[in-house]
Amino acid sequence: MTLRKPIAQCRSLAALGEEGLLRILTRHWRHGPTVRAGVGDDCAVLEGRSKEDSLLFKTDSVVEGVHFSPETPSRLVGRKALGRALSDIAAMGGRPLYALIALALPSTTAPAVAQEIYRGIEGLARRFAVDLVGGELSRSRQIVLTIALIGETAGYPPVLRSGASPGAGLYVTGSLGGSLGSGRHLRFPPRLAEGQWLAKGGWATSLMDVSDGLASDLPRLAQASEVDWSLDEERLPRRRGCSLQQALCDGEDYELLFTVEPDREGPLRNEWPFSTRLTRIGVCLHPSSAICGKTPSFHGFDHFRLS
Amino acid sequence: MTLRKPIAQCRSLAALGEEGLLRILTRHWRHGPTVRAGVGDDCAVLEGRSKEDSLLFKTDSVVEGVHFSPETPSRLVGRKALGRALSDIAAMGGRPLYALIALALPSTTAPAVAQEIYRGIEGLARRFAVDLVGGELSRSRQIVLTIALIGETAGYPPVLRSGASPGAGLYVTGSLGGSLGSGRHLRFPPRLAEGQWLAKGGWATSLMDVSDGLASDLPRLAQASEVDWSLDEERLPRRRGCSLQQALCDGEDYELLFTVEPDREGPLRNEWPFSTRLTRIGVCLHPSSAICGKTPSFHGFDHFRLS
Repeated sequence: MTLRKPIAQCRSLAALGEEGLLRILTRHWRHGPTVRAGVGDDCAVLEGRSKEDSLLFKTDSVVEGVHFSPETPSRLVGRKALGRALSDIAAMGGRPLYALIALALPSTTAPAVAQEIYRGIEGLARRFAVDLVGGELSRSRQIVLTIALIGETAGYPPVLRSGASPGAGLYVTGSLGGSLGSGRHLRFPPRLAEGQWLAKGGWATSLMDVSDGLASDLPRLAQASEVDWSLDEERLPRRRGCSLQQALCDGEDYELLFTVEPDREGPLRNEWPFSTRLTRIGVCLHPSSAICGKTPSFHGFDHFRLS
Repeated sequence: MTLRKPIAQCRSLAALGEEGLLRILTRHWRHGPTVRAGVGDDCAVLEGRSKEDSLLFKTDSVVEGVHFSPETPSRLVGRKALGRALSDIAAMGGRPLYALIALALPSTTAPAVAQEIYRGIEGLARRFAVDLVGGELSRSRQIVLTIALIGETAGYPPVLRSGASPGAGLYVTGSLGGSLGSGRHLRFPPRLAEGQWLAKGGWATSLMDVSDGLASDLPRLAQASEVDWSLDEERLPRRRGCSLQQALCDGEDYELLFTVEPDREGPLRNEWPFSTRLTRIGVCLHPSSAICGKTPSFHGFDHFRLS
């Protein structure tokens, strides 16, 4: 029998990984009756105006030297920060409503840098009708930009990660891989229209965004839904010039990963109203019948794993 | 005539100050019809479930080396971060509902540090019935802890900074000064019960929290309300051992500053149900009749002013 290491003996966050530490930090949390989904999905889901409405609540940070380099144009830094949070709203099938901007930056920063960061946020906010309702500045050694977002689903429920059943088809939007190398991670379009369409029409039984790489994110969806999966690696929609490994592990794709019941897969392909590519990449399985559904030996992006 | 320096020519944020830069960054923002108050108050005020209800939305960060030192016990770091955000909800007369935790920290940090930060947040959250609904971790060179909070006022309007009229009495809760030196800035009780009582009973015509020092915050309230003021400096409730200058300028008091119409000042003093000290510190004046109401030569805490 292997005893689990107590947290105090783990030397650093790098040894635990972001997900492992978050699980430890929040495992004893108990939510009140107005919380429909808390930790473990793309957004928190809260009681809305009526039984058919939900509020979505999300915060997300980008850090200089981790999510962008000192050379990244400031406008794209702002764009990326809001885009990531919007992608999480898309991953519930929601509509974004309000955002707050918390920006920590060195006191020696040129004010024009802050202004460009704000412009990047504002441009994307306008495009997706997000109301910017407040900002806060603090002093730090490197730029840390945190966006807090409120969104909603009005008249339909948000789609959680946990709704997939064995037999459901696995789908992704767009193409995977090479996002960091190509600069797409700074300019990706959050899949809000696609997410809302999938949720409103009841197409998707489970839904999340692919932000850490399919190899990291698919196991999360499968675990939340208690299914295994078979992945058709040949069919993975790779970004031009990307290897299979890159498509699986690069991360920062910000595409949607979702499941569809078998009887709705044909209609889905017929009625998909977007120019965004739609690919069936596999199928959900009973946990016992897994043929490929193991945590891959490669892994996606994890903030604290340094290897 | 002195021409205003264009932003691009200001060399650093230190030259502009936090407030000056935020004003520039947000001056062109236009809010949608569901936003009742945006930038410039303690929280954003959003449409609630009904006409009589409002949602409050706030984000606030604490940064290692700025808001706490590397020696500060981690539990108190968490406590302070949530306490500051709760103080902003109190400053609208609201009730806190939900919080998200965005924690950026070095990958070499011992996991127990993150755990203690969470415990500090959890303790205060329990005390004020705040539902913690999500966390996020990222890697950074120093600890930056951002709390995003949703609150509400149910059945009564939030109290803005802008409602003071000439003749209204100026009040503060508690005592001012010496918060950093005494460690109170890590343990202060957010004045939520007091704020809600003031708002529900319609006592306060304007309300904010004193976080940057009365010398900085009173002019903000006065400007928002378009009034001047006369301050009775002798009566300022100073914390034990503090000079007048300290009570005015130290900052990090997290007390409530508010105004009360003259005919309700007697009843307020009679009916105040809290053990928290209540002090009348002055009166609001017509802008033209100011005798003391000038921006003091000393100033409160500003993140980017280094002098």
